[in-house]
Amino acid sequence: MPTSEFELIQRCFVDQGLGFARAGVELGIGDDCALIAPLAGEMLAVSLDTLVAGVHFPLGSLSPLDSSAAAPALIANRALAVNLSDLAAMGAAPLAFTLGLTLPHDDAQWMSEFARGLLPLARQFDCPLIGGDTTRGPLAITIQVHGSVNALRAPRRSAARAGELICVTGTLGDAAAALQLIGAESHLGRRLAFSREPNNSDSDYLRSRYFAPSPRVAFARAAAPFMGACIDLSDGLLGDLGHILAASGVGARLDTLTLPFSPALSNTLDPEQCELAALSGGDDYELCFTAAPTDLSAVRDCAAALGLPLSVVGEIETQKGLRLSRGAEPIESPPSAYQHF
Amino acid sequence: MPTSEFELIQRCFVDQGLGFARAGVELGIGDDCALIAPLAGEMLAVSLDTLVAGVHFPLGSLSPLDSSAAAPALIANRALAVNLSDLAAMGAAPLAFTLGLTLPHDDAQWMSEFARGLLPLARQFDCPLIGGDTTRGPLAITIQVHGSVNALRAPRRSAARAGELICVTGTLGDAAAALQLIGAESHLGRRLAFSREPNNSDSDYLRSRYFAPSPRVAFARAAAPFMGACIDLSDGLLGDLGHILAASGVGARLDTLTLPFSPALSNTLDPEQCELAALSGGDDYELCFTAAPTDLSAVRDCAAALGLPLSVVGEIETQKGLRLSRGAEPIESPPSAYQHF
Repeated sequence: MPTSEFELIQRCFVDQGLGFARAGVELGIGDDCALIAPLAGEMLAVSLDTLVAGVHFPLGSLSPLDSSAAAPALIANRALAVNLSDLAAMGAAPLAFTLGLTLPHDDAQWMSEFARGLLPLARQFDCPLIGGDTTRGPLAITIQVHGSVNALRAPRRSAARAGELICVTGTLGDAAAALQLIGAESHLGRRLAFSREPNNSDSDYLRSRYFAPSPRVAFARAAAPFMGACIDLSDGLLGDLGHILAASGVGARLDTLTLPFSPALSNTLDPEQCELAALSGGDDYELCFTAAPTDLSAVRDCAAALGLPLSVVGEIETQKGLRLSRGAEPIESPPSAYQHF
Repeated sequence: MPTSEFELIQRCFVDQGLGFARAGVELGIGDDCALIAPLAGEMLAVSLDTLVAGVHFPLGSLSPLDSSAAAPALIANRALAVNLSDLAAMGAAPLAFTLGLTLPHDDAQWMSEFARGLLPLARQFDCPLIGGDTTRGPLAITIQVHGSVNALRAPRRSAARAGELICVTGTLGDAAAALQLIGAESHLGRRLAFSREPNNSDSDYLRSRYFAPSPRVAFARAAAPFMGACIDLSDGLLGDLGHILAASGVGARLDTLTLPFSPALSNTLDPEQCELAALSGGDDYELCFTAAPTDLSAVRDCAAALGLPLSVVGEIETQKGLRLSRGAEPIESPPSAYQHF
């Protein structure tokens, strides 16, 4: 008799400790529904993302047939991280997540390693697995995260106002370089080219930026009171900032000379390629947000307390559209943002 | 320039009215997270299900390349219905749903029809679409539903007690017969055989039972105060009742002569085949629940008020295991429940 779905889930997810208890989760894995009790006065923020093998992570090096033991854990970590990043972009505190895992065949070892890959982030963000579905089919992962947020403080995409500064956390472009490094396509296709072959240390750094993005939850929770609009950078700064501009009915100017690059990126790409990676490479999962100039020092304090770089890269303007420059020199034809289809 | 994901979602889902406003939904489609405000004193019940083409619905007749205009709408309707059924099994009132849709290629018409197929149930249960993700890949649909429930009244799987009666709503086995009818495999594989070819009316009825299951939300909301444990029947009565017995640490006896069959099923299958379909066919999405004998008349009143058949099919017992009989005659080797892998 084959192992039942129920037993597999028990063994791989529950027994590895992913279904841990926490305040706000009344009932977890094992019933028709999980039950969540939001904090008094708070709302529930929810976000769902699907990652498909061969589209959202490289299939060649990460299929269930691959011999690399780390692969399922890397996919798992990334899948949960990009979802937690959506909570960060809303200023929400993680509460719990659900998982829809589609696997080509029964592979308890793959599932175990996948479950193990979820555990560090789940623990770090006190965000247990509370339910989901395991199905047979082409490898894909859907995660929905649930967070708690004071609705009045959630920095919505529609809240950007002319005169506010445009800020980004961390450094941009690393994830696109990582994909180039492992021979996979970023949102830029194959338009990136290394000017110097990365050394081991730079290579490891860039890979970790793609496979293990750091959801900026703590920063967002602290800085949300000072934010106008906020979004996380999944498609690249051009595309994602574009969503803020469209939702807020405003425009912006952006000086690409102020874009933050990591030493690893600057070591291996020419400046124009760094700029391309930052604007349209995507997958960095840093935050892009707006803040009034008078709130900038408060925002900087929040970042500094966490050792997180913070850069002002532009300004919201009344005139619609996005105006790019390198210092004083306008850029006429910016690269297009990533298109999903 | 290709149509962006954002525009597709706008056109197919939002413009068709799926993102309608309702109390409890503070922020819907279009931001990093949706915001849900549960009712005072209520908890949020959540459930996620993935449906994969070729596994959870027949691929041959329903692929995006198929010429049948109704197909995407049928898939959509079924995907939302089976999720709403999980809310029913928890006695929860639907609030909103999220959707992860993975499609092999950009097909606005397919998506439009899919969206149109979601609308009737979304409206009927006042359950708008509040967010999700559209990705490229092998056809699969993940839906998470969110409902509101008084946690003290939610009939958990672990709440069955010896002496309670085992009840089922509606009729069982119809969905397995429908799959047999369209040449697809049910949870039983191909073990069903029609003793008589169904006439058009019976055929239409059986198909509708598979493609358009009726989530028993209204009944469950009314009857929840009288229920012990409750589960919805996705894998077949044997498997699903088994989950209640395991979670509650009890056993049960079941008399198959009391199983409810539709006229369409009885017209086309021999009695033993009806029994097999009901016990292990799955996909009926009726409710199986327990109730104290003293609450049976109250439960019957709830069903009668909705014109819903209600059958008592067995009793919870202290002795573990499931004991099947046909009247007084014990059944020695029951068919195994559906295994996902």
